[in-house]
Amino acid sequence: MCQAWGNPSSSHPAEATFVPVSPRSGQAEVDDVLAAIRPNTCLVSLMLANNETGVIMPVAELSQRISALNQHRAAEGLPRILVHTDAAQMIGKGRVDVQELGVDYLTIVGHKFHGPRIGALYARSPGTATPLHPMLFGGGQERSFRPGTENTPMIAGLGQAAELVNKNWEAYEAHMRDVRDYLEATLEASFGKQRIRFNSHFKGSKRLCNTCNFSILGPGLQGRRVLAHCKVLLASVGAACHSEKGDRPSPVLLSCGIPPEVAQNALRLSVGRGTARADVDRAVQDLMQAVEQLEQDQAP
Amino acid sequence: MCQAWGNPSSSHPAEATFVPVSPRSGQAEVDDVLAAIRPNTCLVSLMLANNETGVIMPVAELSQRISALNQHRAAEGLPRILVHTDAAQMIGKGRVDVQELGVDYLTIVGHKFHGPRIGALYARSPGTATPLHPMLFGGGQERSFRPGTENTPMIAGLGQAAELVNKNWEAYEAHMRDVRDYLEATLEASFGKQRIRFNSHFKGSKRLCNTCNFSILGPGLQGRRVLAHCKVLLASVGAACHSEKGDRPSPVLLSCGIPPEVAQNALRLSVGRGTARADVDRAVQDLMQAVEQLEQDQAP
Ligand SMILES: Cc1ncc(COP(=O)(O)O)c(C=O)c1O
Ligand SMILES: Cc1ncc(COP(=O)(O)O)c(C=O)c1O
Repeated sequence: MCQAWGNPSSSHPAEATFVPVSPRSGQAEVDDVLAAIRPNTCLVSLMLANNETGVIMPVAELSQRISALNQHRAAEGLPRILVHTDAAQMIGKGRVDVQELGVDYLTIVGHKFHGPRIGALYARSPGTATPLHPMLFGGGQERSFRPGTENTPMIAGLGQAAELVNKNWEAYEAHMRDVRDYLEATLEASFGKQRIRFNSHFKGSKRLCNTCNFSILGPGLQGRRVLAHCKVLLASVGAACHSEKGDRPSPVLLSCGIPPEVAQNALRLSVGRGTARADVDRAVQDLMQAVEQLEQDQAP
Repeated sequence: MCQAWGNPSSSHPAEATFVPVSPRSGQAEVDDVLAAIRPNTCLVSLMLANNETGVIMPVAELSQRISALNQHRAAEGLPRILVHTDAAQMIGKGRVDVQELGVDYLTIVGHKFHGPRIGALYARSPGTATPLHPMLFGGGQERSFRPGTENTPMIAGLGQAAELVNKNWEAYEAHMRDVRDYLEATLEASFGKQRIRFNSHFKGSKRLCNTCNFSILGPGLQGRRVLAHCKVLLASVGAACHSEKGDRPSPVLLSCGIPPEVAQNALRLSVGRGTARADVDRAVQDLMQAVEQLEQDQAP
């Protein structure tokens, strides 16, 4: 799929090609991304972990392949392809090393790892080897890359949160994985294997330690309806930035090959550093009573 | 002065006319602004109080005159002129009432009134009577005017700070004016009337209650040099967003008619809610010893 993209007031809208996710792996496959590259391609962006499924994308491999490709392209006079990854979901939940990933740009989002609600963009060598252009203009702060009085408290908070993650990520990850796996086991035990479908178990794909995307199968059990009948559990059925989509099943799940009748029942629960197994028990009990209620209401 | 302005990648750079400040009043005069209006003018922006001099601009009068003009323009099929003011410096230091001011847009900056480092734009009726176009694109938050997870803690903090200002601005203003006036009196008493020049005393112009822009007259007493010799006082010689200008005298002061040799000695001291007369005494003593030191160093 190829679309015009970018600031509508800009005189040169960029063209973007969207590469579908493989329904086998839930990943954007490196070969598919490479096959979509064109002579005028200058940037490839692949998120490091998907925000709905938690599936981890092959970013390091992609960077390596593009780096090799760039050598041929240079010889042919074609533009170098830069690689960007959005690491919002992965920082604090797994190892994120910009050198290992080999990317030119990496998106950092503080509020995903107990930091303040501020973000940052890593650029390998801003303004020189990796181009970086301001989107806003005004005072000359941050070497004119971004105007405005710097938000010093939040910048310091982001640094502190990053330091904690850097030091403790393995412990954080082990804890979250334990509680998340307990959540999935408890869901299966409580509803029965036949009624629960996990939407992010793909063979051969790694996934984040904290995300559980699942559907309770059956008619009338759409994600929103189930949540509306919960008494203590507050959760989302997908990504907040696409919440205008209403009751339609998540396009992300559909593109991963989840059937529409399963996708529309999807719930996304995430565990955090502070989530305990006891919290899981309460959440699952709450879900069970909600489903019971819905089924009673539906009974003829 | 007329310049192309705006996002350099945009296909239609806007033209902007800059209206000089009157050296008599330190204000952009309403008549001068109106004289600069052209058939294709669609926006007039006038800051509510200048950040270096504290001079308060005639925004309410400007809005009234433009509102009258807009009626004639409508009859002639000319575009309506919208009015914007940047109230960053005034909120918390004086009465700011968007109805009284009659503007279509008003800039609010939290960190100028003890709020968090976040801002807001007031728009009279966003997207309908007063056009409002996003500058960034992405998630559909804030009715798609601005994407990104809302910074809820800072938004709440801004609201709280605004409430405090709304309730207490008269007390804040009275306190700051008292301490600032004491600062100016102490400077005159300490250095002598002949050695101190206040750069924001314009006949007939109102000014903010908290700003004191002054020069200690004499060779070798450039603002930066004086501050470098201070032991407790930390201050700025101008606006942080123009700090790249180095030792050149402030263009704002020059445009207000301050002679270059006075402007290059300028110091800008602001008092705040928590500043006491005792702080003023310490600051002025510090300035006196810095000047003494500089003069000793200069003595042949
Ligand atoms: C007139 C004026 N507007 C706006 C601002 C706010 O600018 P920023 O977004 O850099 O904090 C300031 C001061 O910082 C100012 O003096
Ligand atoms: C993949 C991804 N990138 C970035 C973000 C951050 O977006 P925002 O700037 O709206 O906080 C999120 C979640 O909010 C996300 O899931």
